[in-house]
Amino acid sequence: MDITFNNNPKLSILIPVFYVAWQDDFLTKQEFSALAGFINNQEWLTKAEKDFLKTKIDYSSPPSRSEFFKWKEKIDTLINKSNPANLTELGILIANSERPALSEDDILKIAPVFAKMESELGIMGQEIIAGFKSKTDTVTNKYGTVKSFDVNKLTELLDGDQSVHIDKVKKIISSPEFKLETISDTAEYREKVLDWCKILAKEGMGNYAYPKEYGGKADIEGYFSIMETLSYHDLSLVIKFGVQFGLWGMSILSLGTEKHYKKYLKDVGTLELPGGFAMTETHHGSNVKGVQTTAVYNHRDRTFTINTPEKYDRKEYIGNTANHGEMVTVFAKLIIDEKDYGVNAFIVPIRDKNKNVLEGVTIEDCGHKMGLNGVDNGILTFKNVIIPYDNMLDRFSQVNENGEFESPIPSDNRRFFTMLGTLVGGRIGIPRSALAAAKTGLTIAIKYGDKRRQFGPDGGLEVPILNYRMHQKRLMPYLANAYAIHFGLQYLTKRFVNRKEEEMQEIEALAAGMKSYSTWNTRNTLQECREACGGKGYLSENRIDDLKNDTEIYTTFEGDNTVLMQLTAKNRLGEFRKQFGQMNVSGIFNYVIDQAKTSITEKNPFATRNTDEKHLKDKEFHIHAFRYRENEIVSSAAKRFKRLVDNGLDAFDAANVMHPHMIQIADSYLDRVFLEQFQYKLSTITDEGIKEVMERLYNLFALNKIEEHKAWYLEQGYMEGVKTKAVRKLVSQLCWEIRQDAVPLTDAFNIPESCLGAIVTNKAAEA
Amino acid sequence: MDITFNNNPKLSILIPVFYVAWQDDFLTKQEFSALAGFINNQEWLTKAEKDFLKTKIDYSSPPSRSEFFKWKEKIDTLINKSNPANLTELGILIANSERPALSEDDILKIAPVFAKMESELGIMGQEIIAGFKSKTDTVTNKYGTVKSFDVNKLTELLDGDQSVHIDKVKKIISSPEFKLETISDTAEYREKVLDWCKILAKEGMGNYAYPKEYGGKADIEGYFSIMETLSYHDLSLVIKFGVQFGLWGMSILSLGTEKHYKKYLKDVGTLELPGGFAMTETHHGSNVKGVQTTAVYNHRDRTFTINTPEKYDRKEYIGNTANHGEMVTVFAKLIIDEKDYGVNAFIVPIRDKNKNVLEGVTIEDCGHKMGLNGVDNGILTFKNVIIPYDNMLDRFSQVNENGEFESPIPSDNRRFFTMLGTLVGGRIGIPRSALAAAKTGLTIAIKYGDKRRQFGPDGGLEVPILNYRMHQKRLMPYLANAYAIHFGLQYLTKRFVNRKEEEMQEIEALAAGMKSYSTWNTRNTLQECREACGGKGYLSENRIDDLKNDTEIYTTFEGDNTVLMQLTAKNRLGEFRKQFGQMNVSGIFNYVIDQAKTSITEKNPFATRNTDEKHLKDKEFHIHAFRYRENEIVSSAAKRFKRLVDNGLDAFDAANVMHPHMIQIADSYLDRVFLEQFQYKLSTITDEGIKEVMERLYNLFALNKIEEHKAWYLEQGYMEGVKTKAVRKLVSQLCWEIRQDAVPLTDAFNIPESCLGAIVTNKAAEA
Repeated sequence: MDITFNNNPKLSILIPVFYVAWQDDFLTKQEFSALAGFINNQEWLTKAEKDFLKTKIDYSSPPSRSEFFKWKEKIDTLINKSNPANLTELGILIANSERPALSEDDILKIAPVFAKMESELGIMGQEIIAGFKSKTDTVTNKYGTVKSFDVNKLTELLDGDQSVHIDKVKKIISSPEFKLETISDTAEYREKVLDWCKILAKEGMGNYAYPKEYGGKADIEGYFSIMETLSYHDLSLVIKFGVQFGLWGMSILSLGTEKHYKKYLKDVGTLELPGGFAMTETHHGSNVKGVQTTAVYNHRDRTFTINTPEKYDRKEYIGNTANHGEMVTVFAKLIIDEKDYGVNAFIVPIRDKNKNVLEGVTIEDCGHKMGLNGVDNGILTFKNVIIPYDNMLDRFSQVNENGEFESPIPSDNRRFFTMLGTLVGGRIGIPRSALAAAKTGLTIAIKYGDKRRQFGPDGGLEVPILNYRMHQKRLMPYLANAYAIHFGLQYLTKRFVNRKEEEMQEIEALAAGMKSYSTWNTRNTLQECREACGGKGYLSENRIDDLKNDTEIYTTFEGDNTVLMQLTAKNRLGEFRKQFGQMNVSGIFNYVIDQAKTSITEKNPFATRNTDEKHLKDKEFHIHAFRYRENEIVSSAAKRFKRLVDNGLDAFDAANVMHPHMIQIADSYLDRVFLEQFQYKLSTITDEGIKEVMERLYNLFALNKIEEHKAWYLEQGYMEGVKTKAVRKLVSQLCWEIRQDAVPLTDAFNIPESCLGAIVTNKAAEA
Repeated sequence: MDITFNNNPKLSILIPVFYVAWQDDFLTKQEFSALAGFINNQEWLTKAEKDFLKTKIDYSSPPSRSEFFKWKEKIDTLINKSNPANLTELGILIANSERPALSEDDILKIAPVFAKMESELGIMGQEIIAGFKSKTDTVTNKYGTVKSFDVNKLTELLDGDQSVHIDKVKKIISSPEFKLETISDTAEYREKVLDWCKILAKEGMGNYAYPKEYGGKADIEGYFSIMETLSYHDLSLVIKFGVQFGLWGMSILSLGTEKHYKKYLKDVGTLELPGGFAMTETHHGSNVKGVQTTAVYNHRDRTFTINTPEKYDRKEYIGNTANHGEMVTVFAKLIIDEKDYGVNAFIVPIRDKNKNVLEGVTIEDCGHKMGLNGVDNGILTFKNVIIPYDNMLDRFSQVNENGEFESPIPSDNRRFFTMLGTLVGGRIGIPRSALAAAKTGLTIAIKYGDKRRQFGPDGGLEVPILNYRMHQKRLMPYLANAYAIHFGLQYLTKRFVNRKEEEMQEIEALAAGMKSYSTWNTRNTLQECREACGGKGYLSENRIDDLKNDTEIYTTFEGDNTVLMQLTAKNRLGEFRKQFGQMNVSGIFNYVIDQAKTSITEKNPFATRNTDEKHLKDKEFHIHAFRYRENEIVSSAAKRFKRLVDNGLDAFDAANVMHPHMIQIADSYLDRVFLEQFQYKLSTITDEGIKEVMERLYNLFALNKIEEHKAWYLEQGYMEGVKTKAVRKLVSQLCWEIRQDAVPLTDAFNIPESCLGAIVTNKAAEA
């Protein structure tokens, strides 16, 4: 009689190993031979039994599919009855399942030899057993969304006193005229965007920021809220809107005087007078102080002649000019009697009311762009274009009746930066617009991840991908960032709206920094959102495409981010030096004492190794850690710069060596401000449910930032490895916890359904 | 007589302070008052003198522009004659410039008081002085490109034995028919791409990978070189080409048998028979094992019925099908007598020769995408489509004459992964295509940065932006990565082309990992390139737009990167266990000894603090550091997984907790492989000039990776802060050095001019 497992059940001891061998690509050909060798060495088997067993692991003659499935059935039947520790124990269970085929003595003899074989083949029996045992219902696939707080209340908290403006904009962009679709034809797209802008102007959205006497609402905060809310919709619309009512209109308001307001503001606010803002030149992008366009004053007829001398002195990327603009604010060097009086601003007509381009003006189209193709960016060249005296925007400098230059600000440099300072609003509108785009992306990706199922335990339901730790790690920190940045930008806006003159420097530095911080965060957020939505994230109908490509240029315009971060850093360095300079002896003494205290309270071995969860979630710990980083980086930068110059490096070269260090100054400063604002906001929340979820988000924001900079903290000895590892673990745990709140937290953004893309709205079922 | 600086020169001591006060926004209004207070306290001044001085710092009445400029002239004249240490010393020089207005005694009295005032106002005199002294010619603005090696020889080194294929492709894509332009109209774009593919097929590029007996060239390596070189051109073309000749053709070759080769391969290679590869379903993207499409075998007429049961079981994103494909390889569960035999592959016609869609087949268009709009991705639904018996691709499983399932691989799981394994070529073609896109982006951004000037020392030439440290830090590491990945992917290709069966698992794991590594690297590289080109990087004419958006999906298709990294990690974990399993007692003893040796040689205080440049550039140090990281991460993962399961976690849940750790396993493994291949390549270079520059690039690659992971090294105590700081400094230094080689290093890629975008080619002058 032929040997079978049925008539010789003790041989079944090898079934688990055979199953594993054929199940996956786990064993190599050589290992199949090794297994055969092992069988040959078993003295308790007869030759016939050995030969039979070896037929089951003949690499060139696999078992039939049905036999293989029978093995699996045997394993499945027994795996949960008893609790085998490895494949040998499981094999014994199978061998003895019908009747005792292996005696206790046999087992004592066989077990150690088999265990050694398992280990030599690298089969970690224990884990494979765990795999066999895996349930169809696991923690991972049963997890999901929980509503633990009142979403509407959180929306109210976010919108604050701006909700009336926000709701009005949401209503407009949800209307049928504003239906979103991909318009590949650039000309058509631009007209659509212009039409949308006209509707907004008609609804009274265009002139919020202008004084009431010129048809406006004197509500600059409202203007920013409109910009931000519009950003849930098409971003070409936002930029066109911002160029017309922000850059163009505000350049008149900020740099001009009464006569200009009277003449232009009303028509700008109604879009009767479309215009642009012509600062950037092909050869001077971020270094706007270096513009080469000239405005030569002619005293005889009191006019200015605007000219772009060389080809690449032309004005480039000027929004609202390739098709629609009729006038622009031009930044040009004022020349009087061949003497250069620095950069000033002038209103220059470029088209008549019938859209004919005026003499001396050449307008080219910038052509197809990565995004924002609904905005008509143009290139402007001026060849001796004469404009009247009144077209000089003369708030900060004038040409007097004698044809002499006059200004309350003697330094050309300082005057120019004062002019730029009045235009800082753009650096508030852009980061807020960027934040809205990040929120939209997060809402799409999180709602998709909550529904989309992929992989799962054998035989069990597939798992919503947002339950995967890696997926959480990709999205949850950005959700926390969105809230942190929201509160921080509200703070910036309020500071700006209620500014005193002596605060302007600080506010400018803050705006420059927050613009960079927010736009880079949006870039990173949308990148993760795209990948987190897989192929769906690549389809234009799901919006991440446009959100990502439109905001891509946010890191460049209104000032290249790396350049702006240098600005912020310079301001911080100046502040640091002043603080230090103003200290008298006792001040310095206190400073030294403070530093020593930090060493005692924060850098002692207990603190640097403290992994207690309560400590890691302590707001005091966070603010100390953030401030410590900020202070150390700025003071080491001051010392380093001095050392470089002392060593004979030219100041310009030294500044160059310091570039990356400067970015760190700005980054650590901004982290601290955002942290403080988040802490402050928490202190104002009374609703228990909201407070709890916001505390979790806050902790994730704080600890994720510490985790991002842990190399620095380790280098400084501020934390030891054991603590940074505990932070990492807690970040992961917080991501897991917040995943339950994630959908409601995006619901609280209250983004119009029509802006959320196909996977979230009409085709939600397919996820 | 009124007091003036001229008639009372001692007062000029304050000119530098006054200049600084009005120059920038450096002093606040309060500080102007403080300065007035200071003047009031100077006992050596008369009241009239004080009053005069105070008029110069009256915040509401600034000096005239011309007076301000006179101050600057005085400073400029004196600053380089002597060597003042601060503003007071400079003031004294000015005061005494005509005649000695201040005596030695005066100076001794005044100087300390003034120095204190400077410090209290936070004016760091020394640095301001350094700024005044800044030369027009600095190190930073005089730096630039140097040619230190033979570019053509480096190109030869990169191309190796593939240069004949590469040059042929370059010639074709440089021809007028292949002129690149932005085509917004999707339909037009798709036809253009099809035309390009036809030209390539006519030139004999389509059938490289097929056996000679079916019209091919049996040159799979050549096929990959073609794919990579085409990727300098339009990436829609590359993907369409890859779908037709790679996915569609290779699925027949890899999964079919003789009868299929005879019938189809020739027509596929000439594009007579356009087709696609229908694996992905809406509900099953990365989890392809879960596809729901069925192929029911009908024994009576020996046919199969293909069906997509539920709506979202449809095949989605299928390239080459929305417009052009006539047949596709469909992956479906084979059902015989209502029994499921796992996923198998079938050839299913979808259109006739006249492009009419066949009965039972529904084809929808995926619509507009973020990129690759020249590829016609479609959605395929099959309603009981009957195909003949011969259309089953039957290399790994067959239905025999009795209508029974037969396969040499009993496990459905293993069989499916064996099938997928034969298709691993896609995971070689994609990372190589991604690399080419990164090289194109780098070439554009580096050449732009080399020419584009922005900012500079006062009065000096503006600086090429590539001379800025921050700009170098953004681009140089990616240039090093491009070379490292180039050598690594060549290694992968050679391994694949010369593979033995027992190596397949390792090669599959390597390909999955390198696909993720390369595509993520391209994503990051192109992001930096876009930002590094500022507004120019946003214009479609400069190509970064398309390169970025087209490769965006590379991180998702051919397997989502995070999923693929898990695959790689599983393989590494398996290998680790086998190594450990196979160790006998003496092996384990040796392992323990080795670990101890690591501690002695690498983790002793001398090594962990060694900042010697020679040590930091030592290849032995690098390979030890990389291997240490790899081994520690994999062994800690093995221990951690065991611990989680021991603690009662379900295996599926434990695997979920381990996700981020698994990514680290794969990442550290890939880093080590790329490092080894770069080291190996260096050892083969004989040309001195090339060797030197490649050593620099190699060092940057190695040290930049260590810098990226320094938090981990610090946590482990493998390095101390002093060493990681030295690494950062050396990375910065290497970036500075390589900047000189950067343009020639991109020239060596030898990318056709026509593929480099407007800023590099016809409009180069404008930079």
